Amino acid sequence: MGFDPTILPDVSNVTVGLLGGTGPQGKGLAYRLARAGQTVRIGSRSAERGAQTAAEIGNMPGVVSGDRVSGGDNVYACDADVVIVTVPWAGHGDLLSSLAEHLPGKIVVDCVNPLGFDKQGPYLLPVPEGSAAQQAAALLPESRVCAAFNHVSSVLLINPQIAAMELDVLVLGDDREAANVVQALAMRIDGMRGIHAGRLRNAAQVEGLTANLIAINKRYKAHAGIRITDV
Amino acid sequence: MGFDPTILPDVSNVTVGLLGGTGPQGKGLAYRLARAGQTVRIGSRSAERGAQTAAEIGNMPGVVSGDRVSGGDNVYACDADVVIVTVPWAGHGDLLSSLAEHLPGKIVVDCVNPLGFDKQGPYLLPVPEGSAAQQAAALLPESRVCAAFNHVSSVLLINPQIAAMELDVLVLGDDREAANVVQALAMRIDGMRGIHAGRLRNAAQVEGLTANLIAINKRYKAHAGIRITDV
Repeated sequence: MGFDPTILPDVSNVTVGLLGGTGPQGKGLAYRLARAGQTVRIGSRSAERGAQTAAEIGNMPGVVSGDRVSGGDNVYACDADVVIVTVPWAGHGDLLSSLAEHLPGKIVVDCVNPLGFDKQGPYLLPVPEGSAAQQAAALLPESRVCAAFNHVSSVLLINPQIAAMELDVLVLGDDREAANVVQALAMRIDGMRGIHAGRLRNAAQVEGLTANLIAINKRYKAHAGIRITDV
Repeated sequence: MGFDPTILPDVSNVTVGLLGGTGPQGKGLAYRLARAGQTVRIGSRSAERGAQTAAEIGNMPGVVSGDRVSGGDNVYACDADVVIVTVPWAGHGDLLSSLAEHLPGKIVVDCVNPLGFDKQGPYLLPVPEGSAAQQAAALLPESRVCAAFNHVSSVLLINPQIAAMELDVLVLGDDREAANVVQALAMRIDGMRGIHAGRLRNAAQVEGLTANLIAINKRYKAHAGIRITDV
């Protein structure tokens, strides 16, 4: 069997919302998805900042059609087929609780890493639900929650000079069909592969691996990501 | 700076012991290290089985010098510069406690993954100390404990037809000099790189990622490993 991207669905018409889309990760993903021609809705606590960021992204090099990038508040971003959560861990639970009524039936992609930092660097914080993604699933029982994009450097995403994101995105989720959509979405971005890497209960270590990648970045002056070998 | 293997020490004369070296992971690592020309001491609960496995490995294709591979009980394997722990998680703590008196000052490399399995597949078990490697460090306060080789497929390791192990080994440890030795040891194996990936407190997610790699193996009929990108 091996890895066969042709079995994944066509997601060229799938719309993508970004919660907290004015932060580095949200902006970076919005830019890459806009370059791939997706319709993107950038959400923010402030509708004005959401709209400003959308205008900024829409004018960046390589964006297929700037008017497919729009912005507003986080509720505005919920009106999409796939909603990606790119907020800081500190506000994760509260934000998702407040938006739950807007997210039933939607594919929600959590890429938040619950990390703490001290003088020895980053470390994985304990999460009562097990992981950020499992917390999202608990708070959004009517949504189709996946984890993905946890290891993607925002510095590389937003850099127009980087033509391809040469790395793999691990997609976790119990809803196989939803995970297929997220994998296909990752593969819309040049260089990326979307690899299904297990159930949501195995999300904690994927989120936590970001602490190791940050350590690697510091040690080797890099923007590290991962590739899965033999796939 | 980037990744510069030339700063790593010469480990060609470093001897390596393997605790539980008759299991798949221990045999596989012993074989690759023997192919690289290292002196290897295979340990087992049964001295006879340790010696048998050593004879078997010593006769495999590509081994530089079969008489550099010897075997005995686990105490025998402790008499080496670097001691790699490749026992099942179930016996991890008891074995290390029983061997602590033989390991002061030694570099101990833990590659044990504390995983449980049920009908939904593998998952990370909670460890009171945080991770298998941290448990080793707690039980061996006089040793220099690192984690490494957690993601290396024993099926690929033992297969003589596979010329090179094309993957990266994440090395975790607070003792930088010990970690350098372990990185250099990984790099003795064709195709492998040894990448320092943070302190021991960030070992749990590296151990747990093996559950995701097992899920990937099942889904894609692979023997998955990882490569770090941009390093």
